[in-house]
Amino acid sequence: MVSTTDIRKVSILGKDSIHCGFHLVPYIVRTVLDTIPSSTYVIFTDTNVGNLHLAAFESEFDAAIAATTTGRKPRFISYVVPPGETSKSRECKAEIEDFLLLNKCTRDTVILAVGGGVIGDLIGFVAATFMRGVRFVQVPTTLLAMVDSSVGGKTAIDTPHGKNLIGAFWQPEYIFIDAAFLETLPAREFCNGMAEVIKTAAIWNEKEFSDLESRSSEIFAAIQTPSKNFSGRVQATRSAAQELLLSVISGSISVKSHIVTVDERETGLRNLVNFGHTIGHAIEAVLTPTILHGECVSIGMILEGEVARSLGILTQVAVGRLTRCLKAYNLPVSITDPRIANLPAARSLTVDRLLDIMKVDKKNSGTQKKIVLLSRIGATYEEKASIVEDTVIAKVLSEAVKVIPGVPSKSPIRMATPGSKSISNRALLLAALGKGTCRLKNLLHSDDTQVMMNALIELNVRIPRF
Amino acid sequence: MVSTTDIRKVSILGKDSIHCGFHLVPYIVRTVLDTIPSSTYVIFTDTNVGNLHLAAFESEFDAAIAATTTGRKPRFISYVVPPGETSKSRECKAEIEDFLLLNKCTRDTVILAVGGGVIGDLIGFVAATFMRGVRFVQVPTTLLAMVDSSVGGKTAIDTPHGKNLIGAFWQPEYIFIDAAFLETLPAREFCNGMAEVIKTAAIWNEKEFSDLESRSSEIFAAIQTPSKNFSGRVQATRSAAQELLLSVISGSISVKSHIVTVDERETGLRNLVNFGHTIGHAIEAVLTPTILHGECVSIGMILEGEVARSLGILTQVAVGRLTRCLKAYNLPVSITDPRIANLPAARSLTVDRLLDIMKVDKKNSGTQKKIVLLSRIGATYEEKASIVEDTVIAKVLSEAVKVIPGVPSKSPIRMATPGSKSISNRALLLAALGKGTCRLKNLLHSDDTQVMMNALIELNVRIPRF
Ligand SMILES: NC(=O)c1ccc[n+]([C@@H]2O[C@H](COP(=O)([O-])OP(=O)(O)OC[C@H]3O[C@@H](n4cnc5c(N)ncnc54)[C@H](O)[C@@H]3O)[C@@H](O)[C@H]2O)c1
Ligand SMILES: NC(=O)c1ccc[n+]([C@@H]2O[C@H](COP(=O)([O-])OP(=O)(O)OC[C@H]3O[C@@H](n4cnc5c(N)ncnc54)[C@H](O)[C@@H]3O)[C@@H](O)[C@H]2O)c1
Repeated sequence: MVSTTDIRKVSILGKDSIHCGFHLVPYIVRTVLDTIPSSTYVIFTDTNVGNLHLAAFESEFDAAIAATTTGRKPRFISYVVPPGETSKSRECKAEIEDFLLLNKCTRDTVILAVGGGVIGDLIGFVAATFMRGVRFVQVPTTLLAMVDSSVGGKTAIDTPHGKNLIGAFWQPEYIFIDAAFLETLPAREFCNGMAEVIKTAAIWNEKEFSDLESRSSEIFAAIQTPSKNFSGRVQATRSAAQELLLSVISGSISVKSHIVTVDERETGLRNLVNFGHTIGHAIEAVLTPTILHGECVSIGMILEGEVARSLGILTQVAVGRLTRCLKAYNLPVSITDPRIANLPAARSLTVDRLLDIMKVDKKNSGTQKKIVLLSRIGATYEEKASIVEDTVIAKVLSEAVKVIPGVPSKSPIRMATPGSKSISNRALLLAALGKGTCRLKNLLHSDDTQVMMNALIELNVRIPRF
Repeated sequence: MVSTTDIRKVSILGKDSIHCGFHLVPYIVRTVLDTIPSSTYVIFTDTNVGNLHLAAFESEFDAAIAATTTGRKPRFISYVVPPGETSKSRECKAEIEDFLLLNKCTRDTVILAVGGGVIGDLIGFVAATFMRGVRFVQVPTTLLAMVDSSVGGKTAIDTPHGKNLIGAFWQPEYIFIDAAFLETLPAREFCNGMAEVIKTAAIWNEKEFSDLESRSSEIFAAIQTPSKNFSGRVQATRSAAQELLLSVISGSISVKSHIVTVDERETGLRNLVNFGHTIGHAIEAVLTPTILHGECVSIGMILEGEVARSLGILTQVAVGRLTRCLKAYNLPVSITDPRIANLPAARSLTVDRLLDIMKVDKKNSGTQKKIVLLSRIGATYEEKASIVEDTVIAKVLSEAVKVIPGVPSKSPIRMATPGSKSISNRALLLAALGKGTCRLKNLLHSDDTQVMMNALIELNVRIPRF
C-alpha cells in the first residue's frame, strides 16, 4: 500500500482532488471505492494502455469488492476503445453510451478514464452527458494528460470540421497522477507532454522555465530508469531524478490548477494556457494524426512568439530561449523541421488554410482572432488572450510557410537571420572594450554567450538582464 | 411594442429570466439584441412552428439589424428541423452542429429555440455542448414547453434505449412565454400540457388544483377565442379568460422555478416534479410517438397515486379527484382508455417490460426504483422521490395491465370499484341522519357529492375535509 505521506495533493476549485505519486493503482481503487459510493464502477481505456495496465486495476477492484462485507456488493466492468485521436468521435461516444445503457448503468455510475488525453477528453464528455452527468475520475497515463488535459474539466470530441468542437466542462471527482505510468510511455509521447510543461512555465514562471532549460537530461533519465515497485508497495525513498520529475509535473499542474480555479469557464485568465494553441491547433488540424498535439503547439508557441515580437511586445532573445528549450526536448519549432516538411500534408499548410481553420477557434470573439501574447519568459502581455488582426497573423504565417518547397512565393522575403554564437561573443567583447553604452541587436541567447556575459560581469562590465 | 408593464416576470435561480405575456415577438427580439450582444443569432425551430411563426421573428430581426448604427452589424440565420420526437436524436444533433460549423459560428453565438419541448430539449443540448457551451434562449410554443420543459435547464436527446438518456443541465439566458402561441396549438397538444400543470398543482398547491378542477371550461375558452394583436401591438387590457390562462401558466411556472432554484441538479426536492413520470416514462417508451408525453404522465400519475394508496399513504378520494381533474382536460387516466387499448403497441405494456424500462430511470439509486408519493392533493410524502420496492410497483402495474385484452391473466383479480354518485349521496344522507360518528369508505368525490356535503354542513352536520 502507498502510505498517504507519499501522496502530493494539489488543490483545484477549492478541493484537494489532484493526488500525485508513484505506483498508485491500489491507492486509486481504495480511494474511489471508499469515498465515491456507487453500485457500478466502469473503467474506460484504450488498447495500448489496457494491455499494459488494465489487469492491475481489475485485480485490485475484484479483490476489494470480494472483501466488501457491508451492504450490496458493487460491480466492476470495463470497456476498451481503439487508441488514437479518431476515437474522439461522435460514433465512438455513441458506442460507449450504448455499452453503458446495455449494462443498465444508472445515474449513480462512477466512470474512470484511464489513458491519455484522448481517453480523458472522450470519457469525460461521456460522463458529462450520460443521464445528464455522472461522477468520474481521471487517471491520466501520458505526460500531456497529467499536466494538461486531465486538469481543468475541459472535455470534448472532434468533428470533421475540427478538433474539440463539441464538448462540455465537467470536473472529475479526482485526478490521480501516477508518474510510474510514464515508464511505459514512448519517448516521443513524453516529449509531446513536455511541450505543455514548457508552455505553462513560459506564461507563468521564469524560475521553472530556467530549470527546464538546464535540467533536460536529468528529466529524461527519470523515465528511462524504471522505478522499483516492491509488489505493489512503493519505496519510501525515491531517486533524485524521480523527485525532480514529480516536482516538475506537480509544479506544472499547480499553475494550471490555479488558473482554472480563478477562471473555470475560460472567460479570461484561463485563456492563457492556450499560448501556442491558436496557431498550433490550426497546424494540428492539417497534420493530425501524423504530428502530435504538443509538437504542433511547440511550433505554435514559436509562431505566436513571433506574432508578439512583430507587435513589439516580446524580444527576439525570449523567442530564442523558447526555441532552444523546446529543441532540448526534441520538439519541432518550425514547419521546416524535416519531420514535418517532408510530409505530403505539409503542402496544405498555406496561410489561407490556417487562417480559415482559425475562424472557428473557440477563443474568437465573433470574427476577431485571439492569441496569447508573451511579454517575456514567465509573463504575458494581458491576463487573457489578446485580439490580433488577421494581417499580423498572416504576415508571420507567410514568413513561416514560404520556406516549404512547393508553396508558391510571389514576392521576395526580408527576414532577420538567427543570431550567431561566434559573432555574438566577438560583439560582446568589442562592446566591453569600447567606451560608453553599446547596444547590441539580434544577440544569440545560448550557454556560450551566457558564459561570456558572466565573465564580463565579473570583470565589472555592466550588462542589463533581459 | 409591448410595454414592459404587460410582462409578468418570474424569477429562477436568482434571476428574473422568465418573461410572460401575449404577442411578445418584437419584445423578444429587442431584448435579445439589446442584452445578449453577439455577432450571430440563430433560430432553430420545427417545420410546424416555422411555417406559422418564423416569418415574424425574421422580419423583426432583419428590421432591428438594419436599424443598427453602432459597431459591426450582427447576422441572423435560421434552421428548421422536422417536427416530432424523432428529431431528438444523435443524428439530428450532429446535423445541427454541422450547420453551425459550416456557418462558422463561434462561441459567442446566441441560439434561440423556438418550439415545443422537442426543440427546447434538442436545441438546449446543442447549446450545452457546442464549443463546450454557448448562450441560448427558450421560446416555448406549446403549453407543455411553457410550464415544464423550458423551465429548469434540463436538456436531452433520446437513444434507441430510451428517452432523454443523453443530455446536460444548461440554463437559458431567458425564457419568453408568449401565450398567444397557444392559439395555433392543436387542442390535443394543449391538453398534453395541462397534464403537467395539474401535476405541479397536485404536488404543491391544493388551491391551484381546485381552480383547475372547477374552471376547465373557461381555460379552454381562452385559447379558442383568438386574442387581438393590433399589428404587433398588444392590447393593454386582456380578456378575463386570457388573464386566467396567463395566471394558470405563470402560477405553474412559479412553482417549478422555485423547486429548480432550491435544487437545480435534481438531487432531492427537484425530483418532485417527476410525479407521474417514473411509470409515465416507461409507458411513453412503449407508446411513443402515438401517445403524447403528458398523456402518458397522466396515466402515470394515477398509477403512482395507486402506488401511494397501496402503501397506505394516499386516500382513494384523492386518487379520485386527480382522476376527474385529468379527465376534465380530456386526458387518458388508464391504459384501458380506448385511445390506448386499441393500439397494437398496447399489447407490449406488460409488467415485465415496464419494470425493465424503469431500470434505466435516471432517478434510480442503483437498482432501487424511485417514485414521487403524493400524501394528499397539494403535498408529497417526502420532499423527494421515495424508494419503492419492485413488488409494490409490480402489483399496481399488474392490476392496471390485466384489463387489456390479449395480456394473459393467470390469477383472478380483486379490485375496488369506483365510487358511485347516487350511492354516495344516499350514504351521506343516512350518515347525517344517524347518531354519533359515521365513517364512509370509497365515497365518490364529485360536484354532486360536494353540493350534498355543503348542504349538510349548512344544516350543522360536521364533515371533516379530506
Ligand atoms: N481537455 C484538455 O484540456 C486538453 C488539453 C490538451 C490536449 N487535449 C487533448 O488530448 C489529446 C492528446 O492526448 P495524449 O497526447 O495523451 O494522446 P493519447 O491519449 O492518444 O495518448 C498517446 C498515445 O500513448 C498511448 N499511451 C497512453 N498512456 C500510455 C502509457 N502509460 N504507456 C504506453 N502507452 C501509453 C496511447 O494509447 C496513445 O497511443 C488530444 O485529443 C487533445 O485534443 C485536451
Ligand atoms: N426538459 C424537460 O424538463 C422536459 C420536461 C417535459 C417534457 N420534455 C420533453 O418535451 C417533449 C415534448 O414537448 P412538446 O409536447 O412540446 O412536443 P413537441 O415539441 O413535439 O410539440 C408538439 C407538436 O406541436 C407542434 N407545435 C408546437 N408549437 C406549436 C404552435 N404554437 N402552434 C402549432 N403547432 C405547434 C410541434 O410542431 C409538434 O408537432 C418530449 O420530448 C419530452 O421529453 C422535457
